[in-house]
Amino acid sequence: MKALFHIDEDERWPRVLLNVKNFIKDTGPGGAVIEVVANGAGVLAYAGGGTEILAQMAELARAGVFFAACRNALNMNNIAENRLPGFVTVVPAGITEIVKKQGEGYAYIKP
Amino acid sequence: MKALFHIDEDERWPRVLLNVKNFIKDTGPGGAVIEVVANGAGVLAYAGGGTEILAQMAELARAGVFFAACRNALNMNNIAENRLPGFVTVVPAGITEIVKKQGEGYAYIKP
Amino acid sequence: MKALFHIDEDERWPRVLLNVKNFIKDTGPGGAVIEVVANGAGVLAYAGGGTEILAQMAELARAGVFFAACRNALNMNNIAENRLPGFVTVVPAGITEIVKKQGEGYAYIKP
Repeated sequence: MKALFHIDEDERWPRVLLNVKNFIKDTGPGGAVIEVVANGAGVLAYAGGGTEILAQMAELARAGVFFAACRNALNMNNIAENRLPGFVTVVPAGITEIVKKQGEGYAYIKP
Repeated sequence: MKALFHIDEDERWPRVLLNVKNFIKDTGPGGAVIEVVANGAGVLAYAGGGTEILAQMAELARAGVFFAACRNALNMNNIAENRLPGFVTVVPAGITEIVKKQGEGYAYIKP
Repeated sequence: MKALFHIDEDERWPRVLLNVKNFIKDTGPGGAVIEVVANGAGVLAYAGGGTEILAQMAELARAGVFFAACRNALNMNNIAENRLPGFVTVVPAGITEIVKKQGEGYAYIKP
């Protein structure tokens, strides 16, 4: 199973991370390929999110979850790419990433 | 046509149910396979939603709409499964259900 | 690449249009087929949106973006179809359009 979670509102991070955690718990280790794509205000948490949110992200990244940030959104929010945690990958455009991944068979989920 | 509606916010039930009704009206009896998956706060209406919302759900269930509830969300909200209406099916994890159904060709809609 | 953007809340138009613009900028002219489907309160902007929003829509329409409006939503909001800009196509039911397009390989995005 392959799943892409889309987030473009800062306040939805707790819900997204809980969804991802429950999905992993249900599918078991290695049972799913998971990507989280943040654009719009969804990228704010990568640079200035609370310690708890960033710790949860880091733990999920260690479990294999791929975290992406939209470069357009980073630019609009004046977030320098070198301020991002090491587990975040910058993509040129979040929407293109979302479209491509659905083309590769990822299910789309917008919590 | 196969369609999966995802709801994780209690206040969106009227919109979801209206979308489902209009979709059925447009596709005709038996014209579409429809599932509604509730996780997060989307499950609250199953146990304590207004009479009107539950009546609409029951009517749609009689018309063949499949209603699912995420067990993680029920647990988080202390909703015992035996309090759910008979037309609701509990799934172990809402996200897994959503991913699986998209893999089976269901379109995803998040009203 | 084919992408369908779904909007059912009036206040999300700036976000949807920015997403579409960035997607076009990233994929280049002719690089993507794009449709925007409005239902619910998403249709209000077609008839009474600010000048700036309508101008942005018109520019994107000239660039090939297809804008659709759900007839059920127009009726519910008492919007006569002849009040819509020329670049808007009315579809019988927004949800049916969304389901059909996903069946034709369009990725779904809900900004």
